[in-house]
Order: sequence, then C-alpha cells, then structure tokens
Amino acid sequence: MKMLLFFFLSIFLMGAVMMACGGKSGNQQSKAPEESHSATHGETPQEVIRVTIFNEYIHERENEFVRKIYPQGIHGAIASYMKNEPGFIVRTATLDEPEHGLTEEVLNSTDVLMWWGHAAHDKVKDEIVDRIQKRVLDGMGLVVMHSGHYSKIFKRLMGTSCGLCWREAAERERLWVVNPYHPITQGIGPYIEIPNDEMYGERFDIPEPEELLFISWFEGGEVFRSGATWHRGKGKIFYFSPGHETYPIFHNMEVLKVLANGVRWAKFHGNDQTTGIGGCYQVKEPLEKLSEKDYKTGVLEHPEEFMQK
Amino acid sequence: MKMLLFFFLSIFLMGAVMMACGGKSGNQQSKAPEESHSATHGETPQEVIRVTIFNEYIHERENEFVRKIYPQGIHGAIASYMKNEPGFIVRTATLDEPEHGLTEEVLNSTDVLMWWGHAAHDKVKDEIVDRIQKRVLDGMGLVVMHSGHYSKIFKRLMGTSCGLCWREAAERERLWVVNPYHPITQGIGPYIEIPNDEMYGERFDIPEPEELLFISWFEGGEVFRSGATWHRGKGKIFYFSPGHETYPIFHNMEVLKVLANGVRWAKFHGNDQTTGIGGCYQVKEPLEKLSEKDYKTGVLEHPEEFMQK
Amino acid sequence: MKMLLFFFLSIFLMGAVMMACGGKSGNQQSKAPEESHSATHGETPQEVIRVTIFNEYIHERENEFVRKIYPQGIHGAIASYMKNEPGFIVRTATLDEPEHGLTEEVLNSTDVLMWWGHAAHDKVKDEIVDRIQKRVLDGMGLVVMHSGHYSKIFKRLMGTSCGLCWREAAERERLWVVNPYHPITQGIGPYIEIPNDEMYGERFDIPEPEELLFISWFEGGEVFRSGATWHRGKGKIFYFSPGHETYPIFHNMEVLKVLANGVRWAKFHGNDQTTGIGGCYQVKEPLEKLSEKDYKTGVLEHPEEFMQK
Amino acid sequence: MKMLLFFFLSIFLMGAVMMACGGKSGNQQSKAPEESHSATHGETPQEVIRVTIFNEYIHERENEFVRKIYPQGIHGAIASYMKNEPGFIVRTATLDEPEHGLTEEVLNSTDVLMWWGHAAHDKVKDEIVDRIQKRVLDGMGLVVMHSGHYSKIFKRLMGTSCGLCWREAAERERLWVVNPYHPITQGIGPYIEIPNDEMYGERFDIPEPEELLFISWFEGGEVFRSGATWHRGKGKIFYFSPGHETYPIFHNMEVLKVLANGVRWAKFHGNDQTTGIGGCYQVKEPLEKLSEKDYKTGVLEHPEEFMQK
Repeated sequence: MKMLLFFFLSIFLMGAVMMACGGKSGNQQSKAPEESHSATHGETPQEVIRVTIFNEYIHERENEFVRKIYPQGIHGAIASYMKNEPGFIVRTATLDEPEHGLTEEVLNSTDVLMWWGHAAHDKVKDEIVDRIQKRVLDGMGLVVMHSGHYSKIFKRLMGTSCGLCWREAAERERLWVVNPYHPITQGIGPYIEIPNDEMYGERFDIPEPEELLFISWFEGGEVFRSGATWHRGKGKIFYFSPGHETYPIFHNMEVLKVLANGVRWAKFHGNDQTTGIGGCYQVKEPLEKLSEKDYKTGVLEHPEEFMQK
Repeated sequence: MKMLLFFFLSIFLMGAVMMACGGKSGNQQSKAPEESHSATHGETPQEVIRVTIFNEYIHERENEFVRKIYPQGIHGAIASYMKNEPGFIVRTATLDEPEHGLTEEVLNSTDVLMWWGHAAHDKVKDEIVDRIQKRVLDGMGLVVMHSGHYSKIFKRLMGTSCGLCWREAAERERLWVVNPYHPITQGIGPYIEIPNDEMYGERFDIPEPEELLFISWFEGGEVFRSGATWHRGKGKIFYFSPGHETYPIFHNMEVLKVLANGVRWAKFHGNDQTTGIGGCYQVKEPLEKLSEKDYKTGVLEHPEEFMQK
Repeated sequence: MKMLLFFFLSIFLMGAVMMACGGKSGNQQSKAPEESHSATHGETPQEVIRVTIFNEYIHERENEFVRKIYPQGIHGAIASYMKNEPGFIVRTATLDEPEHGLTEEVLNSTDVLMWWGHAAHDKVKDEIVDRIQKRVLDGMGLVVMHSGHYSKIFKRLMGTSCGLCWREAAERERLWVVNPYHPITQGIGPYIEIPNDEMYGERFDIPEPEELLFISWFEGGEVFRSGATWHRGKGKIFYFSPGHETYPIFHNMEVLKVLANGVRWAKFHGNDQTTGIGGCYQVKEPLEKLSEKDYKTGVLEHPEEFMQK
Repeated sequence: MKMLLFFFLSIFLMGAVMMACGGKSGNQQSKAPEESHSATHGETPQEVIRVTIFNEYIHERENEFVRKIYPQGIHGAIASYMKNEPGFIVRTATLDEPEHGLTEEVLNSTDVLMWWGHAAHDKVKDEIVDRIQKRVLDGMGLVVMHSGHYSKIFKRLMGTSCGLCWREAAERERLWVVNPYHPITQGIGPYIEIPNDEMYGERFDIPEPEELLFISWFEGGEVFRSGATWHRGKGKIFYFSPGHETYPIFHNMEVLKVLANGVRWAKFHGNDQTTGIGGCYQVKEPLEKLSEKDYKTGVLEHPEEFMQK
C-alpha cells in the first residue's frame, strides 16, 4: 500500500516537473515547430531534426490508472524527453485533432514521425494514411512504437498482417542487443531490462527485417524481434516494441534513449536526385545510341529465334 | 517485308499448335484444375502445383498487332508452356470474368498465382486485392510479371510506389544471373538475351530484395533489378521484369523456363503451425512460471528505478 | 537413482538398435557412398543426396559419460537417423582418419557436409579447410552444428570471430520458429523445446543472417539466433545451435528432423554456368560493339573533364 | 519512506555526476595524426575521423604512364582529396614500409582504412591481414577499392573467392544509384558516368550485399554490383569498384565524393558494450534463477522423452 502511494507521488512529481519544462502536449493544436524548440542546448550548432509524435491519446483520458502514469499522455512523456535532445524540434499530434494533427503542412515540415496507437487504429482515416505513406516514400522517417505494430500505416508499409502473440502479465523483459554496429543501439549495454512489460511473442508477421537490432527474452518463455529496421522508398522505418500504456516504460531512460537514437537514424540523409519514387517516368531519349531497328509497330528483329516450338 | 510476313506466319503457326495442344484459354471460365492437367508426363509421381495465371487481357483484344503476337492472350501463351511442366495444374483468369476469375474458391485451390496487368490496374477491385493479399500471407505464392510491378497487389505487398523509369524502343536487354545458387536461375546460362524489350530502368522503388537474382543491361544505357524475391507472411513472391505486350517475350523459352522455376520456388513448403499470421493471438498461459508480482492494475514492482527525473 | 539406471538402459538399448540398423560409424574408413545407401525406401525414385558427417570424435572416446550418450559417437547418432531419410547416402568422417576423412575424392562426391567439432578445432589442418571452402564455393552444402560455430571452416566462411556467450547448466531451451516459409522449419511446431542444453547467448558474432529461422529462449535469461542461413559462392550454409556432447540432443527427433531438412535445403539446385566463382575471368571480346576510342596506353578520351582542380 | 528518500538521493547524485562528466567533449583538438589535418574547414567543430589509405604503390613506380596519371601514387591522389574533408585526419601506408605501414599503433589509431591493391596481393603478410581483420571486427571501418576486391583482407572478411569477370578496354561505365536513402549515395545524381574504366562484370562472387548501392552498366554489355556494404563484427565495410590504375578515376570528383561518404559511413558509432566479439565468453551466473535440476554429470532430467526409437 505504501508502495502504491509512493508510486503515485512519483508520477505526480514527474508530471509537475514536466509541466514546468513546458510539456503542454495533449490535445493542443500542433504549433509551429520553432515555438517548442529549446535553442539553449549548447553553443555548437546541431543538425535540426523536426520530430512529430503521434499518439491516439485514448487510454490516458479514459483510464485513471493509465492517466496517473502518463498525466500528459504517452506523447507528452516522450516529447518531454525528446525536447531535451540537441537539435530536436518537437511537436505532438493526436487522433482528435483535425486531420489527426497530421496536415499536409505538418507532415511536410516533419523529418521523423513517431507513432503510438492501440485502441483506435481503425479510426485513423485512410486519406491520412495515404498522406503519411507518401511522405515516408519521399523521405520522412517513421518510428513505430509498441502496439503501433498493428496501425494502418505500419501494415501498409510492411505489406503483411503484422500480427503477433501477446499476454498482459507484467512480465520481465530483457532486450538483447544483437546488432552492435548500429547507431540505434549506441550507448546501451548488452541488454535493456524492463521489469514489467506486456509480452509480445513470435511469430511476428513482418517482412524479414533489413537490420535486426534487439531480440527480447520474456519471463513467460517467449522471444520477440523487438527492434528492427526497414526502408520504403526514401523513408527509413524503425520499430521498437516496448511500451504498453499500463507500464511506465516511456519514462524508462534507456527506452527513451533508443527512441531518440531511432529518430536520429531515421532522418533522411540520402540521394535527392534519384527518380522512380512515386511514379513511372518515361525516359524518351536513350543515354546510348541504339542499334538500327527494323522494329516498328509490327516489326520484330528476329522473332523466329525465340518462339516456342 | 519478307520478315514481317514470316513473323505473322510464325505467330499463326504457333497459335495453331497451341490450340492443338488444348490451349483454350482466353475469356473462358476457370475450370476445375483437374481438367487441364496433363497426367501423361512420366510415370514418376510429381508434386502437384496448382497455378492460376491472371491477365487483364485488354491489349490483345483491342490491338491487332498485340493480338497477332498473343492470339490466345498473354495468359494463353504462358499457360500453353506451363501445362507441359510436370505436376503443374494450370488455370487462367481475366479481368472481365466475375470477380476477375479470382473467387475465394479459385484462390483457395491455387498454390501459385501469376499476374500480368498494365492498362487496367485501377479496374481491379479492392476487395479482390484484399482477398489475394490474405491468401499470399497464408502461403499462396505470387509471380508478378513485367508491368504487373504497378499492380495494386504488388504495391500492396511491397508497401512502396513500385515506380521505375521506362522507354519503349525495342531495345536489346541482357539479364545477368547474379545469384547462382537459387533454384529460379537453374538451367539458365550466365545471362538471357532478349532482342527487343521495353526498357525498365532504375531507380525501381521496391524494398531491398531479399534475393536479387537478375540484373538487366539495356542497350540504351540503363540497368534494372529484373528478377527478385521477397516474402510476406507465409507467401513467397517473385518479380520478373521481361514481357511487354508488343514483343513475343512470353514465347521465349528461357523466359518461360525462369517463370516455371519461379512457380516451383513460390509454392509453400514451410511451417504450417506458426501463429501470428493474420491476427493478434492472446496467449493466456505463460510457458514458464512467472515470478510473484505485486503488479495488479495500479501496482508496479519498482517504478522509481526507471522514471524520468 | 532409478532415473539414472533407466537412462543408461535407454542409451544401451538405443545403441543396440543403432547397431542392428547397420550404424557402424565411428573410426571406420569412409566407404563408397553406395554401400550404406538404403535403397529400400519406397518405390518412388528420390533425389539422391550424398551426405558426409564430420565429427572430431574426441569427447565420446575420452569421457565415459559422453560415450554412454553417444556410444557410436555423435556422428554415429546423426548417421543412424539420416540413413533412414529417403534418398540420403550417408558417410562419416572423423579427425583421426587420414586427411580427417575428407579427401578430395570424398568431398567431390559429397553434396552436403555436416560438421561437429569442439575440443580440437585447431587440430583440423589448414589445407583441409582450404579444400572444404573451395568445395563450398563450388556448390557443396554445409550444415554446422552447435560448437562447430567456432570451427575453422565456419569462421573462414563467415569472416567473423563467431564468438558467443555460453554457460553449461543443463538449462531449458525453447527454439522459436521465426521463419514460417522456410523448408528447414517444415514439419515443426511453433517451437522446439529442449529440456537440457548448454546456453549459447548473444551477441553471436556472425554476419547478419540472410534468413533467420530460429531464435532460442533460455531459462537463465538469454536469447540466441539458433538457426540461420547464408550463402558463399554457390554453396549454402545452415547453422543450427542445439547439441552439446553431454546432452542427448542428437537423439531428439525434432532436432534431427530440422537437420535433415537442412541437408535437403543445402543441396545445390542452382545455376551451373555462372562464371566468377573462384577466379578472375578475362572476357576479351565485348558482347556489344564498343565506341571508337582514342584511348590507347597513354591517351585519355577527355581527362580534363574529371580531374581535380 | 526510506525508499523515497533513497530515490531522491539517487536522483541528486546522478545529476551531480552528469554535470561533472558532462559538457567537456566537443571542441578539443585531436592529437596524434594531426599533421595532415586541415583545421581550416569552417568554424563548426567536426567529428574527427582518422583515415589511413593503403596502396601497394607498384604500378605508379614501375609504369611511366600510370605515374603520369598518379604522380603521388593512387594513395596520394586520394589523400589530397580526403585531407580537405572536414574532420578527416589522413595518413597513408604502402606495401614497402615496415609492416606495410600498418603497425598495431597505426591500426589502433585508425577509424577507417582504405585499401587499394592489384599486382601484389600475395605480398601482403598474413600476420598483417590477421591484424587488420581483428581491428575490423573490433570496429575499424574498411573501404575497399577496385582491384582490392581480390585482396587477402577482403577475401578473408567475405569468405568467398571474390572473383569476377573483367576486360580492359577503356569502356564507358555508368554507375546507377539503386539505394536512394543511403548516406554513401548522398550528393550524387541518379548515376555517375565514367568515360573510361576497366570492365568488371558479373558474376561477382561476394556474399549477397547487405545494402546494394550502385549497379554499373558497361558499354560492352555487362553489368556489375559496383557499390555494396557489409558488416563483420563491429566493423563496417564498403566496396566501390571504379578505379583502375591506367585511368584517372581517382581524380574524378564524384568518385572521390562517394569514397568520402563511404569513409564517414564506415566509422563506428555503435554499441561498445556488446560481448561475443572475438571470443567465447563464459557467463557463469545466470540472469534468472534456474529450475531445480537433477542433472549433474551423468544425470538427465527426462531423457526418455526425446530419444530416437
């Protein structure tokens, strides 16, 4: 009982501190990114990364217990950490906002979108999903968290069911780093231990990850590919599984560090001039002179050579 | 002029032979697979593979030149080859048939679906695309040909735009085998040469192939990843680029051989008992005994350890 | 005590059965493959796969406990299972034989080589390792078991240290199938449970697997990528981790089934005509006519265009 | 209550430690190889990357024509470009130097090693190759150029023959970017055109690249996977094919830009605390309490369950 008291006290204090830090997230309208940018972080100019954190923001409003853990919403908890990352300009967006807070303008000024959803995946409008997908293919990074595995946008980009096995039993999870050279695992030890998490287990129906970063061990006997990356078009995608709404996982400093690493990794630094992204481009003039053809409409060079007998 | 005459003569003879062989494809209703199965191929029992060849079947009916090359339709040309492959049971399906010839019944009795489309990708109904995707995730193989790269089903499974660069100039194409250990490249030399093909060039907006099998060289100066594989759910996907409707590429014996190899490869031979395909499965009972928890709704084991300050 | 008795009784009976089955493996000279081929398996002609099982064969001779589990040696236990697989022609080879039983003749008539070693990796001669590597690049399959991860041949083919973390504490291991479409996981349930195994844990220093098939959960809190595939040249490689000498894991029917699947998968069925395997081949004549060059030794076409300023 | 006190105390101490070890990084001058470091590039502090360029340096000394193109040697041409890259500290090493200029000290202070060799691959001592491999597995990046594909170190890390097809005919080469999101292709157009290069053609006997960045088109009809990446241990490897000694390719600004991108990419930014790199580590104490075992030497828990019948 004392423990319970202590826990809520901590949460309360944490919330207070977060508010003091300016974490006025929640249902607010997305602001111009500059407003929430902490320019005070060091004199050395940092690469600017414009991060938008989407959260459906339902459990925190409807469930008292969840609200106590995330008084500012899951997006608020994440934002309060990200705002302190050098160069990060952070906005939030939630389901109830017009266009879910993900207008053309917001997405066009977003380098990396973070996504948390669970209870209302089907409430996300298809035209917004189309818009997000288009932006990802055009180079916007995407960091998908926990139950976001079953979001429309993640399924759309993966092409698979993104199903998995699960159990909610406050189990101990240990996320092992299996990829030591990846920037996303930088600054973490051989594993991250989370005292209580929802179990997510295999078989996780995703395309084979391009890079598998973390494998989770669960107390109840399962394993899970808990951190993985893919590319779609020019966009980089990072999925990271810890983070159920009934556990304070988005206050865990190691989890947040991995997510910040993920944001930095997901920002586009590639080739702006490639073609073939989003359309079929006719190239009328060949780069090399073609051989003489007697092949006009109806004329083949030597069809007899390769006909079926 | 002589050449032209010879060409049409060849086409005609070919058509005649195909009819004689029983190639009554075209707009016909999908038949029970058994009917078209050539059981005469050898005494040794073969693995049965039920192949359904989808073709939108538009150019061949509307364009005289195309019709001369493919008097039975592109699906008919492919079917006439596939029917002679040991163990293959071949059906065709076209856009105008009810449900595009791809009813639940047909798909449920299809091991591998081949796909050709070009002019009418948007005419393929979304609910049929949903159905195909579901079957692929459940283990049906998919072989996508040429302009099928831009079909709804391929884009759905890839998650990308599947755009590319193209030019129609009857160019020489040379498909180099870059994967020597793959069953799909079996029986082919170091490369396949096609005298006249539409140019398909990079950047081809696909997820990085799991296995890159062929790279094409084009006379006009481009290259293309022309043969590649992916997996989605339990399904295996092979894309192979040669095959424009105005060239007799689906009469080319090497191209057809690769496609037949692709069908054999795409048939599912994996694990039937994995879970996590198509849904989220709750696993109520852990496989291992969990440690004692004081974590019920509202109680955390030791939250102070991992809270943000 | 009763259990112990029962165990040794089982081992004894097993040995007897194996002898009855003709499992005269061990130190014997490698015989012509035909001798040990069970031709009786069904009337349907099977694809023939010539398997050679290498075992250093040290623990079983020096340690009484190990010998009781593997009276015919680990290679003998595996051979007794493989000999019953349709089409398999099985030989064994051990360290003490001349050339470790892996003469040019043996390797040239081997489709798939299985490898178990532990105590004497450094006793395997470099020239034999060279020979095996050459054969793998030329298409011989390789199935590496358990402590074989640290063998010269596996390290040679991987290019990495192949190090890992380990603990010998008879732990429960659960190998989860994460790749449902792969022939190697065929016929297995969602996981294999092994009551007692040596723990092998991450980080396993291997190149990112091309296909990750199994992930292991260990009672003591670790995870491991326990089944994975790679290709080198024309050769296919499968690593499977269960199998310590002090546990009867090579009598476990599920483990043996996976190994047999691995052998079938590792047999080469690819392209015999690709070049660029094992050498640098000069291609004197271009396939296409080159443009006129004024580039002879000492003459550049237009060097000024791309010089550094 | 005590717990609470302890909690706040921890927070306080943590903060103090953070401040103490906090912001002193960044602006300090790097020492050691600074000699060739151009400190003039901009006021913004750059990440320091210590690059060592190895060249066998034979053709340039023995062949007058080559010497005219590369009067400072190929390494000199590359170094003169790299020295102007912000943050790069550049050294060179050649075959004739003691230990080929690649002493323990040099390698230990090298972040990324570049490699060019052709005529004298076999003159590179095996112990130096061992040393380089060890450093790569420990996190040193490696950029292999052109004929370096056949070097001992590249073959060692790949595990394959690294053979290919080639022709020296001053052909036009066009390197197409197939990976638009990779930092190595940043700042380049859809392709790089090289007026005269040695043809390198498939099949290139390398393990399937983790990331395929460039595909080359050659005038004479071949294609080649000309830019690709792999990881080995903690080390990152980039192979880039243009660059024959008889062409001024290492004066081509686009080629040099790609190489500089490659160096930046290859520098390690990953996880320093993973184990299993370079050795087999015994983990005596399990992280979780093990179940009671009656399995001591000679005792199995329940062997009867999984014995072969």
